[in-house]
Amino acid sequence: MIMNRSEIELLYKGCHQSAIARWKEFLRFQSISTDPAYHDQCLKCAEWLTQELKNGGFHQSTLLQTPSKPVVYAEFKGKPGSPTVLFYGHYDVQPVDPVDLWSTPPFEPTEKNGRIYARGAEDNKGQVSYAIAAMESLIKANALGCTVRLFLEGEEESGSRGIGAALKDWKDKLKGDLLMVCDTNTVASGAPTITMGLRGIVHLTVRFKGPSYDLHSGLHGGAIRNPATELARLVATFHNSDGTIAVKGFYDQVREPSAQESELARAGGPSFEHYAKQVGAEPIGGEIKYSPAERVGFRPTIEINGFHSGYGGPGSKTIIPSVAEIKISARMVADQDPAKALEQIIDHIKAHTPKGIQVEIDHPVVGGPAVRVSMDSPFIKKARDVLDQITDLKTAFLWEGGAIPIVTALTKASGAEPVLVGFGSEEDRIHAPNESFGLEQFRRGFMWVGMYLSSLSK
Amino acid sequence: MIMNRSEIELLYKGCHQSAIARWKEFLRFQSISTDPAYHDQCLKCAEWLTQELKNGGFHQSTLLQTPSKPVVYAEFKGKPGSPTVLFYGHYDVQPVDPVDLWSTPPFEPTEKNGRIYARGAEDNKGQVSYAIAAMESLIKANALGCTVRLFLEGEEESGSRGIGAALKDWKDKLKGDLLMVCDTNTVASGAPTITMGLRGIVHLTVRFKGPSYDLHSGLHGGAIRNPATELARLVATFHNSDGTIAVKGFYDQVREPSAQESELARAGGPSFEHYAKQVGAEPIGGEIKYSPAERVGFRPTIEINGFHSGYGGPGSKTIIPSVAEIKISARMVADQDPAKALEQIIDHIKAHTPKGIQVEIDHPVVGGPAVRVSMDSPFIKKARDVLDQITDLKTAFLWEGGAIPIVTALTKASGAEPVLVGFGSEEDRIHAPNESFGLEQFRRGFMWVGMYLSSLSK
Repeated sequence: MIMNRSEIELLYKGCHQSAIARWKEFLRFQSISTDPAYHDQCLKCAEWLTQELKNGGFHQSTLLQTPSKPVVYAEFKGKPGSPTVLFYGHYDVQPVDPVDLWSTPPFEPTEKNGRIYARGAEDNKGQVSYAIAAMESLIKANALGCTVRLFLEGEEESGSRGIGAALKDWKDKLKGDLLMVCDTNTVASGAPTITMGLRGIVHLTVRFKGPSYDLHSGLHGGAIRNPATELARLVATFHNSDGTIAVKGFYDQVREPSAQESELARAGGPSFEHYAKQVGAEPIGGEIKYSPAERVGFRPTIEINGFHSGYGGPGSKTIIPSVAEIKISARMVADQDPAKALEQIIDHIKAHTPKGIQVEIDHPVVGGPAVRVSMDSPFIKKARDVLDQITDLKTAFLWEGGAIPIVTALTKASGAEPVLVGFGSEEDRIHAPNESFGLEQFRRGFMWVGMYLSSLSK
Repeated sequence: MIMNRSEIELLYKGCHQSAIARWKEFLRFQSISTDPAYHDQCLKCAEWLTQELKNGGFHQSTLLQTPSKPVVYAEFKGKPGSPTVLFYGHYDVQPVDPVDLWSTPPFEPTEKNGRIYARGAEDNKGQVSYAIAAMESLIKANALGCTVRLFLEGEEESGSRGIGAALKDWKDKLKGDLLMVCDTNTVASGAPTITMGLRGIVHLTVRFKGPSYDLHSGLHGGAIRNPATELARLVATFHNSDGTIAVKGFYDQVREPSAQESELARAGGPSFEHYAKQVGAEPIGGEIKYSPAERVGFRPTIEINGFHSGYGGPGSKTIIPSVAEIKISARMVADQDPAKALEQIIDHIKAHTPKGIQVEIDHPVVGGPAVRVSMDSPFIKKARDVLDQITDLKTAFLWEGGAIPIVTALTKASGAEPVLVGFGSEEDRIHAPNESFGLEQFRRGFMWVGMYLSSLSK
């Protein structure tokens, strides 16, 4: 049974008070996953959530054990012929430091100016709360045709270790047609947004060693190769003057965006002014022939995350440093094999290490490939139709520059098509003090999940 | 009266026991100038030294006050027609940390294997001790025709602040024909060595600022200019591929070495093997068309003393750093105006700062010009004659890459020609734990000062 917008609005009216009350209850659990002191709070939160889902009409709700924190798993069995929807979210939150910058206690949800303030208010308890409220409302209205399988993990903020290790054991549960995730943002304008891509990542540490100790820059300057200078010269070889990457073969596998993707990315990208105001610098890095949104979404990068060598204190110290070190992370786009990209980068480094310098490569990590969702997917087309009805703004499409490694892993393990739609925004200040989520964002999220699942149902 | 080698040897035999005893007494003063806790020890050392010189036959011996530590000043009035010799040395020493690496107490001079171990054993108390012992022996033998004026300062190890500020008030005392300094080394072979040049220095800190805070390298990578990458690219513009400096106009004033200077510098330079063994890297940096000794002696440099930006801890942190900073020191050679060189470097930096990056220049310091002594100077010719007689090894010539700013200042203030001959060697480990100076080095130093002053005397 497909419900229209007015019908879903009625469902929201009917449940929003209890949904918001439950969201607040969810926020009172101090489920900080990275700190072992809060392990019990994480477990209590997971148990509570399991019980809530059971009461909410799911046919099954249980804890799936992992090598670390459990995953809350719930299943609603829908009607034959309807698609199977996997839903991923997380019940853990970031630490609250620096706690004295909070205006209200981080685990005492406080409503102010139409927003709820608390750690996790948005990320991800707020977005999970509207999603399960919408599912339960559909279940009660007998309007949920899809089979829905929820996976709510407890370690998203600390590396997704447990779920990552356990995925291979859950092959049956992971069978699905699409993977919904409500852990993303809308674009700067606030238009409902479908995240169509994520970049992959590799990272490594590179060390250049010269003399066996710091040398006097007068007595030895001119005689010896300076590791700081030589490493800087290596860094300068990573890019061409047009911003393209100069590493041999790096673009061989890169999938170019279609004209439609490029156009949508540009349309969804921030204005120069908005971007510069937000981060304090204009978006003029990278490849000059692409717009900032295209560069972030469709083009790989090699970034220096840190460069350290020699003296860094006040005044001067006239040495030639013995050692220089950089941290590099590179972002991969669709069709690029991260392992191959890492190999190409290492080959480039070795080929550009001069005589007189010893090079060491430390901690090379292949973090996972990119995800690119097809514009032609019927699930995406339907998502766009639904989102176009929620506000007056046209649906935006975003190709994210970051990685969500567990989404990549879930996509790979399940074969399901990711549908990444969330209602976060920059002003929610996730991970920072005074995190919040607006009641209007919550309502839109409910409308999205309700209308979308209803539209998919037979 | 000119004494020959055997006569000076006899003088040494006559005085060496008392000279060595006084050297040890000198070493017991804990005259660490950089640490205010040892200020009294510095003053006591200076007063003791003044008294010793008075007893030793100098016509005048007194403390010259400066804005910080006093300078020990002594004068011997020689015969008309003999040159006036200024002698510079210092009575202060380096700190002793790490003190647990010392095999014997640093201020308890200990004789072992023909060497005296103590802080300052060589630098500069040992070299000052043989010099004043030789002068006093000549005075006693009525064989010192030169007028000698000693300036022994107490802050060489901490910036020569006092003497630097007071020089302008001592115009009469600073009149002299040559400036003797025994604070340098012999070349690797141990051959008696005349230091014929010193480089000047300028230094500065350069900061590149990009976004106003560290950005996520996924969400922003490709959109923004990375200050660490851009600063590395700036560093890469300082040199051409042949090792020459690419800063505009940098070589305009550089004085090329003569064929004789080049030949002598190459002859005095260390072997590749010796150098590589000593510092752990081969001397293959700098301008390829010069030998290492020529590069250090006759060519200017731009060295990176430190490069710091972003993350430097274990593992990875995927950020685009907000700020990157380098420390630069540049060495100047003869005829280069350091102020102009600094200006050229700053112009280069500004011209190579890309859009999207704000550049800040901090603490630009003009440290002083280079010194180059003429091979044609009669004082140098005589020094070579004398030194050729002291050992079986031919006199070596060294163009030092470092600066001794106070020597430059003294040369400028006095108009005297510097004659820099010292008997230090790498194994003396000055500034390090277990500093020492060999009795044979001490004897050679005595021979040098005795024979040289005698040879100049009418």
